[in-house]
Formats: sequence, C-alpha cells, structure tokens
Amino acid sequence: MNKQETLNILEKIKAGTLSPEDALSKLCTEPFEDLEFAKVDHHRELRQGIPEVIYGSGKTAEQITGIVTAMLKKGQRLILITRLTPEIAKQVQIPALRYEPIAKIGIVGEIPKPSGIGKIVVATGGTSDMPVAEEAALTAEALGNEVVRLYDVGVAGIHRLLSKLDVIMNAQVIISIAGMEGALTSVMGGLADCPVIGVPTSVGYGASFGGVAALLSMLNSCASGVSVVNIDNGFGAGYLASIINHQRG
Amino acid sequence: MNKQETLNILEKIKAGTLSPEDALSKLCTEPFEDLEFAKVDHHRELRQGIPEVIYGSGKTAEQITGIVTAMLKKGQRLILITRLTPEIAKQVQIPALRYEPIAKIGIVGEIPKPSGIGKIVVATGGTSDMPVAEEAALTAEALGNEVVRLYDVGVAGIHRLLSKLDVIMNAQVIISIAGMEGALTSVMGGLADCPVIGVPTSVGYGASFGGVAALLSMLNSCASGVSVVNIDNGFGAGYLASIINHQRG
Amino acid sequence: MNKQETLNILEKIKAGTLSPEDALSKLCTEPFEDLEFAKVDHHRELRQGIPEVIYGSGKTAEQITGIVTAMLKKGQRLILITRLTPEIAKQVQIPALRYEPIAKIGIVGEIPKPSGIGKIVVATGGTSDMPVAEEAALTAEALGNEVVRLYDVGVAGIHRLLSKLDVIMNAQVIISIAGMEGALTSVMGGLADCPVIGVPTSVGYGASFGGVAALLSMLNSCASGVSVVNIDNGFGAGYLASIINHQRG
Amino acid sequence: MNKQETLNILEKIKAGTLSPEDALSKLCTEPFEDLEFAKVDHHRELRQGIPEVIYGSGKTAEQITGIVTAMLKKGQRLILITRLTPEIAKQVQIPALRYEPIAKIGIVGEIPKPSGIGKIVVATGGTSDMPVAEEAALTAEALGNEVVRLYDVGVAGIHRLLSKLDVIMNAQVIISIAGMEGALTSVMGGLADCPVIGVPTSVGYGASFGGVAALLSMLNSCASGVSVVNIDNGFGAGYLASIINHQRG
Amino acid sequence: MNKQETLNILEKIKAGTLSPEDALSKLCTEPFEDLEFAKVDHHRELRQGIPEVIYGSGKTAEQITGIVTAMLKKGQRLILITRLTPEIAKQVQIPALRYEPIAKIGIVGEIPKPSGIGKIVVATGGTSDMPVAEEAALTAEALGNEVVRLYDVGVAGIHRLLSKLDVIMNAQVIISIAGMEGALTSVMGGLADCPVIGVPTSVGYGASFGGVAALLSMLNSCASGVSVVNIDNGFGAGYLASIINHQRG
Amino acid sequence: MNKQETLNILEKIKAGTLSPEDALSKLCTEPFEDLEFAKVDHHRELRQGIPEVIYGSGKTAEQITGIVTAMLKKGQRLILITRLTPEIAKQVQIPALRYEPIAKIGIVGEIPKPSGIGKIVVATGGTSDMPVAEEAALTAEALGNEVVRLYDVGVAGIHRLLSKLDVIMNAQVIISIAGMEGALTSVMGGLADCPVIGVPTSVGYGASFGGVAALLSMLNSCASGVSVVNIDNGFGAGYLASIINHQRG
Amino acid sequence: MNKQETLNILEKIKAGTLSPEDALSKLCTEPFEDLEFAKVDHHRELRQGIPEVIYGSGKTAEQITGIVTAMLKKGQRLILITRLTPEIAKQVQIPALRYEPIAKIGIVGEIPKPSGIGKIVVATGGTSDMPVAEEAALTAEALGNEVVRLYDVGVAGIHRLLSKLDVIMNAQVIISIAGMEGALTSVMGGLADCPVIGVPTSVGYGASFGGVAALLSMLNSCASGVSVVNIDNGFGAGYLASIINHQRG
Amino acid sequence: MNKQETLNILEKIKAGTLSPEDALSKLCTEPFEDLEFAKVDHHRELRQGIPEVIYGSGKTAEQITGIVTAMLKKGQRLILITRLTPEIAKQVQIPALRYEPIAKIGIVGEIPKPSGIGKIVVATGGTSDMPVAEEAALTAEALGNEVVRLYDVGVAGIHRLLSKLDVIMNAQVIISIAGMEGALTSVMGGLADCPVIGVPTSVGYGASFGGVAALLSMLNSCASGVSVVNIDNGFGAGYLASIINHQRG
Repeated sequence: MNKQETLNILEKIKAGTLSPEDALSKLCTEPFEDLEFAKVDHHRELRQGIPEVIYGSGKTAEQITGIVTAMLKKGQRLILITRLTPEIAKQVQIPALRYEPIAKIGIVGEIPKPSGIGKIVVATGGTSDMPVAEEAALTAEALGNEVVRLYDVGVAGIHRLLSKLDVIMNAQVIISIAGMEGALTSVMGGLADCPVIGVPTSVGYGASFGGVAALLSMLNSCASGVSVVNIDNGFGAGYLASIINHQRG
Repeated sequence: MNKQETLNILEKIKAGTLSPEDALSKLCTEPFEDLEFAKVDHHRELRQGIPEVIYGSGKTAEQITGIVTAMLKKGQRLILITRLTPEIAKQVQIPALRYEPIAKIGIVGEIPKPSGIGKIVVATGGTSDMPVAEEAALTAEALGNEVVRLYDVGVAGIHRLLSKLDVIMNAQVIISIAGMEGALTSVMGGLADCPVIGVPTSVGYGASFGGVAALLSMLNSCASGVSVVNIDNGFGAGYLASIINHQRG
Repeated sequence: MNKQETLNILEKIKAGTLSPEDALSKLCTEPFEDLEFAKVDHHRELRQGIPEVIYGSGKTAEQITGIVTAMLKKGQRLILITRLTPEIAKQVQIPALRYEPIAKIGIVGEIPKPSGIGKIVVATGGTSDMPVAEEAALTAEALGNEVVRLYDVGVAGIHRLLSKLDVIMNAQVIISIAGMEGALTSVMGGLADCPVIGVPTSVGYGASFGGVAALLSMLNSCASGVSVVNIDNGFGAGYLASIINHQRG
Repeated sequence: MNKQETLNILEKIKAGTLSPEDALSKLCTEPFEDLEFAKVDHHRELRQGIPEVIYGSGKTAEQITGIVTAMLKKGQRLILITRLTPEIAKQVQIPALRYEPIAKIGIVGEIPKPSGIGKIVVATGGTSDMPVAEEAALTAEALGNEVVRLYDVGVAGIHRLLSKLDVIMNAQVIISIAGMEGALTSVMGGLADCPVIGVPTSVGYGASFGGVAALLSMLNSCASGVSVVNIDNGFGAGYLASIINHQRG
Repeated sequence: MNKQETLNILEKIKAGTLSPEDALSKLCTEPFEDLEFAKVDHHRELRQGIPEVIYGSGKTAEQITGIVTAMLKKGQRLILITRLTPEIAKQVQIPALRYEPIAKIGIVGEIPKPSGIGKIVVATGGTSDMPVAEEAALTAEALGNEVVRLYDVGVAGIHRLLSKLDVIMNAQVIISIAGMEGALTSVMGGLADCPVIGVPTSVGYGASFGGVAALLSMLNSCASGVSVVNIDNGFGAGYLASIINHQRG
Repeated sequence: MNKQETLNILEKIKAGTLSPEDALSKLCTEPFEDLEFAKVDHHRELRQGIPEVIYGSGKTAEQITGIVTAMLKKGQRLILITRLTPEIAKQVQIPALRYEPIAKIGIVGEIPKPSGIGKIVVATGGTSDMPVAEEAALTAEALGNEVVRLYDVGVAGIHRLLSKLDVIMNAQVIISIAGMEGALTSVMGGLADCPVIGVPTSVGYGASFGGVAALLSMLNSCASGVSVVNIDNGFGAGYLASIINHQRG
Repeated sequence: MNKQETLNILEKIKAGTLSPEDALSKLCTEPFEDLEFAKVDHHRELRQGIPEVIYGSGKTAEQITGIVTAMLKKGQRLILITRLTPEIAKQVQIPALRYEPIAKIGIVGEIPKPSGIGKIVVATGGTSDMPVAEEAALTAEALGNEVVRLYDVGVAGIHRLLSKLDVIMNAQVIISIAGMEGALTSVMGGLADCPVIGVPTSVGYGASFGGVAALLSMLNSCASGVSVVNIDNGFGAGYLASIINHQRG
Repeated sequence: MNKQETLNILEKIKAGTLSPEDALSKLCTEPFEDLEFAKVDHHRELRQGIPEVIYGSGKTAEQITGIVTAMLKKGQRLILITRLTPEIAKQVQIPALRYEPIAKIGIVGEIPKPSGIGKIVVATGGTSDMPVAEEAALTAEALGNEVVRLYDVGVAGIHRLLSKLDVIMNAQVIISIAGMEGALTSVMGGLADCPVIGVPTSVGYGASFGGVAALLSMLNSCASGVSVVNIDNGFGAGYLASIINHQRG
C-alpha cells in the first residue's frame, strides 16, 4: 500500500533480486501478525508514529495478554487498552500493566513528554461525564499532549464556564464532553476560535435516549469549528485532538 | 361541570321552579353552539376570562367566517385566529379583521392594555425563528401582557445574550425560542430565576429533524425552571406565559 | 456576572482600593468552591432564595458527603439529594440525613412553612407513577409550598377525576404525572385554568417506549396552559411549580 | 380454499364426472378475473356478503373504470372507491358514480338499509379530523349500518363530550378518531362499555409526527375494549365496526 | 355520571328528602374506595358486568393483598391479577389465589361457564408467543368465553395454518399473536371473515425492536377486519374479544 | 487491482520493458475515464461480464448524454439508465434510447437472450408495487434472464398466491416486492425453496413510514432463504437475482 | 399443499379407495407432529433436502429434548439447535449432542461432506463479530458447504482486506459480517462479483444502536449484488448462502 | 468578553478617564449592529481573523441586501452568503455579488491567496454529492486554503479511490462527503493519517432516511481521526478544515 515500499519492491524486480511471483506475494503479504482471533498490525507505529491502542471491549484476558505480549516482543514502547473492565484488568498477565479505573484504560509503558503545538482542553458539563473525559485526556497524554482538565462547567451555571475564559481562549484544541442536552459544546464553539470536538455522553435519563439528545444538539450546533464523534467516544476525541495538535506543514 | 352552576340548578329544583327532568336536561345541555363543523364555546370568556382563539389551520374561509360571526354575535370582544395563511385571510368575510403576516395571526377587536404582574420576554436564537416568536408575542399581548422582544441572541455569539442580562433578570416569564440545537433555552434557564418556557422550532436542516433536536435539547435541560411546549407552538407558549404572569393568590 | 457586584468592583477601582489587575481577577474569580469532582455554588441561595439540590445519580457516597459537608459549613439550611439510592443513602456520613424511600430523596434540614400564593396539586394517572409524584411533591414542599396529592385518577375511570373537580379548580399550579398514554394531562389542561406541568413517566410496556408515548401525548395536548418536562423529571416539575407559585410583581 | 367447494369437487371425482387432473386444475384455478394490472375477485360478495371496495390511491382513471366495469358486469350491486382524488373522479367513465368530496369516496350503487344490531358512533376530536371520519362513516353506511356522527368533542373541552354521554352509552361500536395527542380514545374507552376502535389521524404539527403521537397514545390506552387501526384508516375502522355490528351467533 | 342515578338524586331533592348541598356532594362523591395507593372501584361489576382485573406490574404483595381483600369484602366473585411475577404471587396473603405461571395471572374465584355467542380462537406464530397467548386466553375464559388455542401456526410453514382452516372459519373472534414480522395477522385477516385482533409480541431479536416490527406489520395489514392492541397486551385482546363475543342487540 | 494484470506488469519490469516508475504509475492509473462530473469505468464489462448501468437520479440530461456517448464509443453493447424521469429522458440526445415509463428505465442496445440457469419470478403484493417490479424485471431481462411476472398476489387474498404455487415451486430465484406490511415475502419464503429477495416498497400510508414497516417485516421473516435490499430498490434485486441465476461452479 | 400428493389423493378417490370425506380430511391433515408446545415438521427434509434446525432461544431444555427425540425417532440424521445457551445445553438430555460455545449451536449427527458448487467465504470486520460468524459458518458447513473464514478484516485497515483479494475473488458466495458502521459489506460488494450477504451485528456502542447503523449502511450499499439479513442473523445468512451455493439448473 | 479590552476599560477607570457607570455600560454594550431582524457582528473579523458568512436560508433578498450593505460599510473585505437560492440571489441588490450555482453560495469580495499549512482534500462518494462538496470547497478557499477536489470515488469501485492514494497521503485535512451508506469516510479514515471530517449528505432513497444512514455510519467509524458534522453541512466542514489547516503554535 505504501508508495515508497512499492517502488522499492519494483526496483528489486528490475535488479533481478526479486522474482515477479515473490513480488506479488510480498505486495499481498499481510503486514500484520495473525493471532487467529486478531490481526496485530506491527507497521502501524512506523507508519503513523503513534502507540498501539487495543479496544478492550469484548476481549478476554487471554486475548489481551496475547496481543500485548506480541506487541512487546516487536518492541512497541507504549500500549493502551481502552474499555478495559476492572475484572478483566486483574486477569491480564502483563506485570507492567497499570490500570486507570475512572478512564477504564490499561497502560503498558511510559507516557511520553508533550510534543504538540499547544494545549488540549478537556471540558465536561457535569461530574458524571468524567469517565469519558478521562478516557479522552489519558489518550491525548499517551499520544504526547499537554492536557488541561475543566470539569463540571455546564451551561446551567454559565459563570463557572465564563470564569475559565482564559483557559478556553488559549487552547489549541478543545474536547467538549456533555450528556443531557449537550449545550456546552455549542457555547464552547461560540467562545473559542480553535477546533472544538464534541463528545456526547450517555449520561442522562428519559428523553436523553442514551446520548442521542446530546448528539443531535452537537450536530446542530450553530457555532463554527465544531465536529462530533460517537457517543461516549473519549478515545476517538483524544486521538483526533492529538492529530490536530501535532499538525505541521 | 361548574360547581356554582350545578348548585344553582339544584336550588331551583328544591324551590320547585325547575323539574328534575329539565334539570337533568340542563345539566347535560351543550354550553356551546353547534355549527355542524365546529362546536363554538360561548361560556369560555366568562369561565376563563380570556379572548377566543380559533386554530385556523385546515379550516376554510367560510368556516372561519362562520365561527367569528357567531362569536361576535354573542359579544366576544377580542378574537384571535392563529395559523391563518394569507390566502385564507383574504377570503374571510370579516371587515374588522387585521392580519399579521409574520405571525400568521388574524385579529378582530382591540388588544387590551397590559394587566399582568410583570414583563414577558420573548427571545429567539436566530432571525428565522421570528414567525414562532411573533405568534407567541402577539398571543401574549392579546391576553393583556407587556412583551419585550429579544431576537437573534443565540449561543453561538454568547456576548449578544449576555449584553441583555438586565432584561433577562427583570423578566416575569421568559419564552425562549430556538431551532437547530436549542441551546439558548438551557443557557437562559441557567441565567434567569423566573419560569422559562422553551419553544423548539422546526428551523434547521439535516439532523435537526424538523425541530426534534431542539425539542430533545430543551427537555434535557439541566437548568431548573424550564418546561417545553410543542415544536413551533408559539401560541401555547404565549398563552401559558400569560397565565403565569396573571397568577394571583 | 451580577450587575451590582460589577458596579461595586468598578467603584473600588476608581477609589484606588483595587488595582485593575485584581479587579479583572475578581471579575473572573469562581463564585463556587471547587471540590475537584464538583463545583459547589455557595452564592445560589442568596441569588435565587432556594435550598441547594444535589443530583445524586452517579455520585458516590463520599462525593455526596463531601458536597453536603461543604454546604453545611457555609450555612446552607436545607439540602435535598435527589435520585439517591437506598444503598448510597446508607453510606452517606451525614447524621442529619433523612431518607424518603419512595421519592428516593435525601433531606438535610427542616422543610420550611408554605410561603406560596396557593396550593400545588400533584396528580397521577396510576399507582405506579407515585415515585415520580413524590419526588415532585417533596421538592415543592422543600421549596415552601402546600401540596395536595391526587393519586390514581387516570382517564380510564374519568369519574375518579371528576369527583375531585373542586380540588383541581382551586389549584394555583397542577403537576400532572402519567405514563402509558399520558391522556391525564390533556384532560387536566381542559378542566383547569391554572398552569399545568405535564410529567411523562417511564411506566408502561410495549409501545410506551419508556415514556415516549406519554411525552408525545403531552406535547401535542390541545389544551392551553400545558407545558412538559423530561420523562420522570419530578424534581423539575416541583421546582418550576414552586417558582410559579411564588411569582410576585 | 372453501371447505364446501372442495368437498363438492371431491364428490364429482368419486362420481366420475370430473377427472383428477381437472379437479386439481379446478382446485388451483384463480377464482378472480385477471385485468393484468389487478386481479378482480368475483367470489367475494358471496363469500363475505359485502360490497366490493377498490383502494383508489395510485390507480389511474382507466384502471378504476376497468375494474368497476368488470364488477358491474358480474352483477355487483354496490361498489366503493376509497382514496379517490377529485381529479381522478372526474375522469372515471362510470355514469352512475357519485363522489363524496370530504370522504374522498366514489360510490356506485345504492346504500343499503341498516341491517346491524345497533348504532355505530363516529366521534372526532376536532373539525380537521372530518375527512377520516366521513371515510369511516360512509364505509359503515355502505355496509348496512346506522351511523351517529359526533364531531369536535375533543378532551380539551371535556364538557362537550360529557354532554353526549347518552349517545356514547347507547352505541354498539364506537369509532374514535383523533390527531394530535389522541386522548379522546382513552377517555372514550373509559366511558363506554362497547368496543372502541381508535383511528389516529395525521392532523397536527411538530411532535405529532404525522399521527405517530396519536397512534402511540391510543395503543397505550389504559382503558379496556380499545383497539387501533392504521393512521388515517377510516375505511378499516368502518369495515371492522360493521363486522362487529353484524356479529350473530 | 349515570343518567338514572342523577335523575333519582334530583327526584329526592324535589321530594325534600335531600338538600341541594348534599346532592352536590353526592353527585361528586367517589364511587370507589380509596386505599391511599389505589382507588378501588366497587361499582364496576354492576356497571359493566365483568370481574375485576388488577394490573399487578409494579405493585407490592401488600398492595395486592389489600386490594383483593377490599374487593372480596364487597362481594366480588372473580378477581384476576395480571402481570404477576411468581415471587410476588408467593407473598400475596390470599389463600384462595391460584397462580398460572405461563400467563403470569393470579386468579381468585371460579371461572364462569361460557356465555358468549361463539368461540374465540387464540392463535400464535410461534412457541415463544405462548405467555402472551395464555394471558389472552385466560382473560377471555374468565370473562365467560369458550377459547380454542391454535399455537405455532406461523406463516413460515403455511400448511400448518391452512390445515386449521375450519377452526378459523368458525371463529366468532380471532386473537392473532405474533412477534418477529407479525405476518400471521395479515394472513389471518385474509382468511377469516370475523374480527381479528392482532397482538404484536416482543419476541424476536435484532430489527424486531422489541415488537415494533410486528406492530407496524399488523397496523399496515391490507386485510380488512383487523385491529391492533399494544405489544404483549394479551389481556387487552382477551377483554376486547370478550366484549365482541357478548355483543347483543 | 487485478491479480493477472499485476503479475503481467511485474513480468515486464523483470524483462526490462517497463521501468519501476512507469510500473508504479501504471499500477496507480485510473482504469476509468474522468468526465469531471463522473468517472466512467470501461473495464467493468470485461471484469464482470455485464452491461453498464447508469443511476439516473440527480443527473442532468447533458451528463447522461455524455456518459452514454463515452460508453458507446468504447463499444459498450447494452446500457441501462435507471431512475430516469420522463422529462430528462426526452432531453437525452441519444437517438437509440428507448424509454420504459413504468420502470422509469432508459435502454440503449438490445436485450440479450436468456442465459441463466432457470426462471426469475417477480411477484408483487399489489398493483401499486408495479414500478419497482418492472425496474427489477427489466434489469433482470437486460442481464440475460427469463422473467415471470406475478403481480397483485398479496396475502390479504391468499388464494391468489396459492393458485400460482407451481410457478413459485419452479422458480430459480424469487423477487418478492411488497409495501404496507410486506407479509408477502415471509409467506413466499415459507412456500419456496429457492433464494427469495425481498424488496420493500414505499407504497402505503400512515404507519408504513415510507416502506419502513415492510422493510422491518421482511428483515424479521422467520422463513429461511430470505434476504432484503433497500426500499424501492428494484434494480438491486434484479441484479442480485441475475448473479444467482448465473451461478456456476 | 404438494402438487404430486394432491394428485395422488385425487386418483385414489377416483379409484374408490378413498372417500371424499377422508380425502378432504387427508388434504387438511397436519404433516407435522404436534408436541403441544411445538409442531414438529417431519416432511421438511424430504421436501427441502436439508437438516432440521431448532431455534433454541426461549425454549426450555425439556422442550428441546422432546423435539430432538421426536426428530431422531423419525430418522432425522442431522439436527442443529441455534441460539442455545451453555446453561440450557448442559441440561438437554441428548447424549449425542455436541455444543459449539462461540457459535452457541448444538449439533446432533454428522456434518456432511461439502456438496456445493464452490466455497462460501465468511468475513468479519472485527474480532467481536466472531459469534455471529461462527453461527453462519457452522450452519453452512452443516448444510454441506466448504467454508473459508476471513476474520478481522475491517475497512479501518483496508490492507488486511486487500491482502486477501484472491480468496474474495474465488468465492461462490460471501457472507460479510460487521457491526459499528458496517462498511465492510459495501467494500466487499465493490470487490467481489458473486452474491454478498450482509449481516449487521449488534457489536458497537453509542450511535450504533444495537446494529441499526450497520444495518442501514448495508441496506444503502451502492455496490451491486448485496442483500441483507436481520441483525446478528448468522444462521439466516449461512442458510441462504448454502441455497445459492447449491443452485443448479 | 475580551480579556484585553476588559483590562483596558479597568485601566481607564483607574486613570479617571472613564466613570464606573460608563464602564459598566461599555462592558455590557452590544459589539454588534442591530438591524432589527438580525444582529450584525462587526468585531468578528478582528476577533477571529475570518470573513463574514451569512446563512442565507430563510432570509429575504431585502434582509440579505441590508446585512451585506452594513458589513461593506464597516469595511468587511470578503462576505459569503451560503444556502442562497438562485431566485433570491437575483433579487439581492449588491452589484459586486457573484453567484456559484452548484454550491449555492454568493460571494462579495476577492478570494484570498492560500495561507494554510497544506492542502485540504474534498472527496465525494458520488456525483450527486457535488453541491455539498462545492459548498465545502468554496468555503475553504474563501478562508485562504488550497483545495484539491476528488469527486466520485465511492467504495463501490474502490480502485478509483486507491488510484488517488498519493493525494490522500499528502493531505493536511480531508473532507469526506458521502450519502447512502457513507462508507467512504471509514475507508478514508483507515488510509489517511490526517484529520478526516465526515459530511453525510441527504443523497439517497429508501432507508437512507435523508442522510441518517450515512451519518450513523460515519459516527460509528472504527477508523481513528474521524469526526462528523451535520448532514449536508459543507460550510461547517470547510470552516473547520480551514481552522485546522491554519493551526500554529
């Protein structure tokens, strides 16, 4: 798939050091390790310069242990396991694993020093949005970003938000996390002039419909510079924020 | 249905001035005029002290003319016809009819002087919410309220809203009208300490789903003192605001 | 945010008793106590004249204990904790806490004497709507209102409702609570001439969709004076009813 | 399909007057006339004792003319064409066709005298529900029923409904037609002790969602004896009411 | 509410044996017993000639015991408790209570002999629809009907249904119960010429959406004579079928 | 993308007749003609052995003329334009274009002789489903299949369907097209032992929701061998049926 | 129902060896065994040439034991029980039962040798889709097909999919299984020229709505040759794939 | 609201050149021009460094003329009017207005030279997505970005997309626009390592539900770095892409 690699292969054919049959086989070879239950991609760090992330939901402790072990063997320095329940975390056979209970993230390896352009602000409407916020914040930190947390600043008491205007004005990217009516993201989009990533949460009851009300509210935001990820997708927001915060010409 | 009236009837039976059969017939008699296509209620002004309102949608000019004529005959002083299209308005055969094109309301009779406790603030998120806002404002004025209009103060530019804080703080009731994400109502609920009536509008596109996004946003508002009426229901909001503004012990 | 406070600060600058830098810092200072997991707002009682209410759902016993303790230190006389499960209630370390199991509300402090204009009627369609109704009723009582309970008066047996016509006619505000088809609120709106706050409940099965059928029914009510709060939101209805019942010029 | 017919065929085989091959062919022969665009069923009146009904929606004037002509040739005495627009009605080449503009029904032949057990009451919540109501009423009349119309008796003014209690109490079947919140059907079900057929209409706006709010309201009715047909399906309600009104041991 | 009773009261006033004040009080008196958590209606059997039915869902064993005891005292001969879980059933303190585990119905008193015009057929698409079917069948039997059960006759194997054509042809009313795609009801409506009551069930998975697919399928049935009750509402179907089966001129 | 082509390119590199740079460029070259507004794929017939199909919806007459002309130049023998309105069809500048008004399909070139294994049966529930059915039938014929049309055989009159059992039993593939409740597909799946492709149509009103009721009904079919395509997607069904009918080892 | 059987019966009548009454009874006799809770169809293998499949969901161990025993007695050689939980599987009293825990399928009898035209490819987007994939794969194998498994080839890392192009190109039928956004099926449809059966899975969170997002994505696929079965319906896909893979002239 | 402005005001008070009352008034003064129907914000360009954008939908030609005139007077150099119909565009009285018919954008002033870090790629699944794509592309160009258009590269023919891999790999931001199943965005997210902004379009029919299928597909994308804006919101995507492309430390 990679342009340079393809060119290299073609050069080798020309040089006679590779037969066409082998080349085809090489071009079609899986650049990942097949663990039967999962295909571990070992080229990813090189290709995209980022740590590996395992989506833990629905995986057994054995499967996670297997994937992490394979990654460590290949020299992966930092591994994140998201959506990891405490029960599974206890059973994973990786001594170096640290577990963050609020974010439900397992970490193997050292969090790198911040390397981004500026700061990523992670803001929440309420206290109950914290698990999603910590998933976003830890992801961003693992990807080399300085993170500022701004929790419980929902619009029902807008002075709490306005008192943090300087933090908002100085952000490089804002992750705005809210359940219920999700209005925080619209207000944030109106105040800030940097990209705002809305994360609706499933916090709420009744006509919040598991995050749909907040999702629709954010999608319909009149403020410019706002985009949205899936309900409760703290990881996706942290990842995207990091890409933006590492944008360079 | 009315307690005092029932008592009066019973007294007359006792006094022999009314036979039981006539009493029963009286108790079950329609206190409204049957125009075949509609049942016109002539006791309503007495019962509830308010002008008559005709829901114009789906009625022909002939039907509206008939209903208004019947009401005028019975001495009704002020009649509102909501959801009246310009085409039908032109065909209605009532010389005294005035037509308000933005609110799509027809008025027969004089708007009374304000008699409420305080002021009703009608606020909108954007310019396109004006038809619903004017329906609410005119309804409230017809019911004897002083109305303050605060249009185009959506949260995407929150300084427009904050610059009107004194108006908001001094309101007796606030009608907060918004389409798209409807965040205005949540912010309004956080700022004000009077009842806030949210009116979602069908203004918007895509995932606004004809006002559903704004409706859900308002229903999920974390701010206290907020309640909601149907999408685009300016009349309902104006009517309710008036009742609250006329509350007395 | 408060006009008078801002003016005072500006006066002090002029008088030289406050530097502009300090003023700005003061203007942007948080008027709430930051408990890390929550921002406790100590100005609220003064600002809005009401007891503090903690939304208990999703909070640990430690967090609730911490917030209540901070409030009590600041002199808060009455504290409500809504959506408090019996399990968490037992673990909260506040000796003065009383727990109402049907309403799932914890109370610290004395319920004040009624100070409203009239009576708030809390009506339900069925027996199963009682938890929501008690949340509304207790909230209203805590906010200084006389409450009349009218339970199990659904429209399937309309004589039960009609036999209470005098209570309905004399209400200052009505909170009409119903699941399933929610028709009670429409009928109530047709009978009463005071504000009617509809609370759809998640009681029901099949096509009730967790309260959506009742919610839609109430939003579409043809009766005037009706507005709606979120499904199961007894607190919101009680709070709004209290504001209306304390409306004064 | 018909038991007696099958037996007759089998008897003929035994008697030797019919070969097995012919019998099989007879058993599988279409008891309808194939007009290419439609299969006209000529056995239906005999089988079910009712007039033919053509669903006019989406059919051309030519197709309707063709079907009616084929039916008349076979001796059909009464034909109804539902959902017939005025434009198509004008183009249908059947001199005997009468057109009912409110019900949008075309009729060929004489409405029979009532032959049912009792009366069918057709009630509506508002004036705008009349087209659906007339479709139901005319269908019922064409099927041999006496129909009592009770229009504009919605629950927002419940005294209009209660004043007609005697009509409701004496009905054999009630067709309860309402849009918006559809509460009429629940109240009707609570008052009457005969079958109540709810017909939600698409009348309304905003969160009425083209009749869905009324449909859900009716499906969730707590009152016993209530069932529901499709939104705006006046024909289905009239047909079912007639079957019930002709039930005999 | 009752015409004759009202007349009687009025006659007594005229005769001087009742004061107007007492009459009014009598007219507005509750014809039910108030158990605080429920209003028990003791006039219902007389008024509608049927046994009492308690909706057990969400009621405690104490509440059910209380209601049944109050009913027995007043002479009620047959009591049904629907949606009664086995756990609650064991705790109810009524020695005469029999519990039907599939239908989840508790019965106190004797099932009467059939008194209807004909037979009620209860048919299901699959084995898993049996709980709803038994709720319908037992309700109908308790109300004096002969019931024929026709289970597991879904359209995926249509010969199973066709082999029972004689039963279907001879039914007075058919209750057609199906989950998944609910096609049984449409086919039944096409075969039978009696009223068909469709009951969608929540049986299914994926895009069955808890019975919504079956509900929509039944509402859209092209067959005449079909109406629908709420998802899983076996009781409602049995009750309605009984009314129809007892229709008399 | 094509294995053999890739191998050929690699062989040429080895033989020195192609430089690696040119090879890469060749591997990444577009095998389609870029008309700016559309990318016309000229390899498709060779790759998949089928005529070209242009999705006409939303394309101007100029765009369609351009695409067809480009295809004809490259030697394409048969071209179908689906979803072509009569207005646009008249403006397309291709003399050889024939227009089928019911199917809304434009055809350039000759329909080939049937080359499939057996017959494709296209069945509809009602007359109004014909446009979708003709789109499916014409598509299948253009792709080399013998098609048997079986229109207006909906389950409301199941004898119409059963009388065609032999046709159904002898089909190689069945396309079952129905709106409203879509039960035809389930019944068809129960009768036939070949693949049944369900096509829900948007025919219907009220709770048919533009084909959603039929779609859900078909997705939930208990009959085996049934799969579903998008609402009104006659083309997709005809295309898939043809692939199945041309399956060979 | 079966043509030949009907002819045979008719011949016997003619020959006098069967009375018409007995013939009718025979024609209407159930070709299945009635176990009270289920109707076991013993003609199915003969009629459709396939093993029996019991839908285990919602059946007790006793019911399953009963059905399997009845089938074995009649000589059924291969029986599948789908949606069988491990708990129920342990309690089923059939010694020959083997249980596949990932697919949740119980098997009695020998899996036959492949008899299809080609290979069925079962592909999944992720590891968590494996239960549905195994249900499909085992079903297809039990029905006599060679199955190639291609797991965890979702489009987020499209090189994993492209590296298997040869497998895809050589498939006779492809079952494409994916949750979340379900894009795998569209891409698969674009790559392959054989029938592609999409199976949306309920794997995902937030706005995946239990498989609805994947379902809609697959239904809207622009690629030709794609059809869809119900969410998580691995059995249905495997069954349909087998029919297609056994298509013969 | 602006920190520096607030500080300046406070300094002036200290210096005695501004009275506290005037300061408060200044702090609360509207930094926008009130045109009655709209509040024109003249500080925005200074504050956020971008041209003014008028949302044209629902505005009259007079209103647009008024707003543009007011902006031009204040020296605004570039003005965009989005969602401008050709009819309204003709009536706007601004000679300098240029109208782009596909994008439905009116432009006053000169498009600036690109000033961003890299290139913004605007890709579409099909030809019909072009209006949304051009809205995005023109917006991005107006905000100073170089835009590469990549139209009609949907996943049904994935070689069209893969042949443009170099363009994708070199993008700074990708705007991925697709209707129907929206799979393009997931595939794009898997290929690229820059931010991908998904724009679902309302292009499609049947179960595309006006863009909902594409929206859900994009929200559920398994690929990292993807976020989503509202259906058809080309402007929002272009605006956000520009902010990201102008990110600097």
